[in-house]
Amino acid sequence: MSDVHAARRGRLRAHCSGTGSDAALVSRPANIHYLAGVAPPGAVLLVGPAEDILIRPRDLPEEGGARADDDLRVHALDAPDGDPAVAAADLAGAAGAGAMAVEEHHLTVARHRALASVAPRLRLADLGRTVEELRLVKDDEEIACLRIAAEIADQALGELLESILVGRTERHLALELERRLVDHGAQGPAFPTAVGTGPHSGRAGHVPTDRRVEEGDFLTVCLGARYRGYRCEIGRTFVIGAAPDDWQIELYDMVFAAQRAGREALAPGAEYREVDHAARQVLDAAGHGEALGPWTGHGVGLEIDEDPKLSPAAMGKLDACVPVTVEPGVHLPGRGGVRIDDTLVVRPPADGGPELLTITTKELLAL
Amino acid sequence: MSDVHAARRGRLRAHCSGTGSDAALVSRPANIHYLAGVAPPGAVLLVGPAEDILIRPRDLPEEGGARADDDLRVHALDAPDGDPAVAAADLAGAAGAGAMAVEEHHLTVARHRALASVAPRLRLADLGRTVEELRLVKDDEEIACLRIAAEIADQALGELLESILVGRTERHLALELERRLVDHGAQGPAFPTAVGTGPHSGRAGHVPTDRRVEEGDFLTVCLGARYRGYRCEIGRTFVIGAAPDDWQIELYDMVFAAQRAGREALAPGAEYREVDHAARQVLDAAGHGEALGPWTGHGVGLEIDEDPKLSPAAMGKLDACVPVTVEPGVHLPGRGGVRIDDTLVVRPPADGGPELLTITTKELLAL
Repeated sequence: MSDVHAARRGRLRAHCSGTGSDAALVSRPANIHYLAGVAPPGAVLLVGPAEDILIRPRDLPEEGGARADDDLRVHALDAPDGDPAVAAADLAGAAGAGAMAVEEHHLTVARHRALASVAPRLRLADLGRTVEELRLVKDDEEIACLRIAAEIADQALGELLESILVGRTERHLALELERRLVDHGAQGPAFPTAVGTGPHSGRAGHVPTDRRVEEGDFLTVCLGARYRGYRCEIGRTFVIGAAPDDWQIELYDMVFAAQRAGREALAPGAEYREVDHAARQVLDAAGHGEALGPWTGHGVGLEIDEDPKLSPAAMGKLDACVPVTVEPGVHLPGRGGVRIDDTLVVRPPADGGPELLTITTKELLAL
Repeated sequence: MSDVHAARRGRLRAHCSGTGSDAALVSRPANIHYLAGVAPPGAVLLVGPAEDILIRPRDLPEEGGARADDDLRVHALDAPDGDPAVAAADLAGAAGAGAMAVEEHHLTVARHRALASVAPRLRLADLGRTVEELRLVKDDEEIACLRIAAEIADQALGELLESILVGRTERHLALELERRLVDHGAQGPAFPTAVGTGPHSGRAGHVPTDRRVEEGDFLTVCLGARYRGYRCEIGRTFVIGAAPDDWQIELYDMVFAAQRAGREALAPGAEYREVDHAARQVLDAAGHGEALGPWTGHGVGLEIDEDPKLSPAAMGKLDACVPVTVEPGVHLPGRGGVRIDDTLVVRPPADGGPELLTITTKELLAL
């Protein structure tokens, strides 16, 4: 793996020298993880001007298992309250860097000012979302991690479906799912598990409450596993009891059609907003466009919610090997709703089209 | 509660007008929660120049249960990708504010620049850690929340001690503790539960692994509950099996003595570093000073790790009604160690001295 990270840092270094900076200070944890293989809490990564250095605060508990590449120097601060970013500016200045690019979308105003004052002759430029852009297209190893993460989430969800659900609270179902994720080898949940039943069903990011599952409810579950840092997402909606009502079947079929349209629009070269439009128009046509959130999918990887956003205003086109979610949902206030969410990898038609990572059935199951 | 939040915003407004700003933009979530009673994801709070407004992104899932005060206007953005902070600058400028104080230690450089460009005639000042300072001393209602949070953590820990521990993994014990916290009424864990056994025992913030508890191990558990937003912390170390070894008894007694010294040093008017020194010198004298982290305790409240820090370099004095942890620990690489952690509220001697919130026994239990 160390070659992979060194190669990524090489690409970043090439970008920086192309824009006139001889060093880059990476502070956003997922970006550090991408470039160094680890991201200890509070650490920053200085790339260039000479060697690359991971700078971490004093006296951190060691990370369980993960360690930096052998070829990456790790420097722990002596001062108990020292800021690794300030130390990085100091080191870059001392190493003769003229300009250092920083992540202005992550660094706070106060830290930026502290950097400027410790190395007044170092020009601070904006690195922008360069590392996020490098992270967009995933390599085989990254996709393998996502595939395992999806498999774990499918297993945890499958086991839940075999148990008795009526009478249990949203909170308990969420905790049980998270325990099962860990049982199957996840480092932890990819994001806080959402379980919504009855009037809470179909809501995005619903925080589980003490409401108990009842006969006749819709039950929406959204979960994901984190595996070697990579995060996937799956969401399903079920109906509780012998037979769904007509309005439930109708709403389910409509959201399913929207989700399928979104999935089918995934292809290298497809515009982000085309994919969003494909899913959105199905719900719009049925008069549910207002109930839809600002996006119908997003990238996943080291963060659960990364580029690209699949939304009406998003600019850009999909590439092959970009993993995204497709997750339209409708929530009718007071009644509940439906949300269906998959993680897929964009692939060209010649390779069979989009690769579905989360394979739990999307039939409307009556549990 | 709405009077409480309005009064807190009044104090912030008084501070701002005293420093020449007629509005404050609060972006740090715990600070928003303190001033508004809720902190929807991505929201910001504009205090002044006329009314106070909670500005949130478009289309958020409603928060479970919590809502803003009736007297606080809530404004949801229309634009799907709009930044509430930028909208706040716009509103403040339109309402005639001349200067707006922002949280430069929280706002990123990129957002700060966006604010400046949307309202070029609005002078942006630094609010600094004003709200964090207002949050230091807790009122009775806040302390009542912390007391309940501590009670929940004590219950969860007590139940774990009654179960069989040998053969179970750190991960499973941590998950079970988190489930029990929720069973007893917590909103969730106050921070990721740390369970370390054998060579992992005694480490601060240890990320649970698949190591199983064995006879003869030290077992360190650190957990906390979140109740109505407030977070407490408790840490205990146990020994597994019939009788502890001599080195285990010796190490335990020493850390216990250090922790007691720290607790006994808590009093209104005591310097932060005095309290740290009281605990630290016991371990220093025994040659374990190096194994100790940069601080031996910290404030708790809406965040688990808030001001003050009890460390050698910390400046300032404790006040009554400031809740803090006292949590020295020693970890011997390869062997393990001991960590003992309580949450207490500083009280004057006339009121009986520090109030211990986490009451689980600190005897060395052999389980």
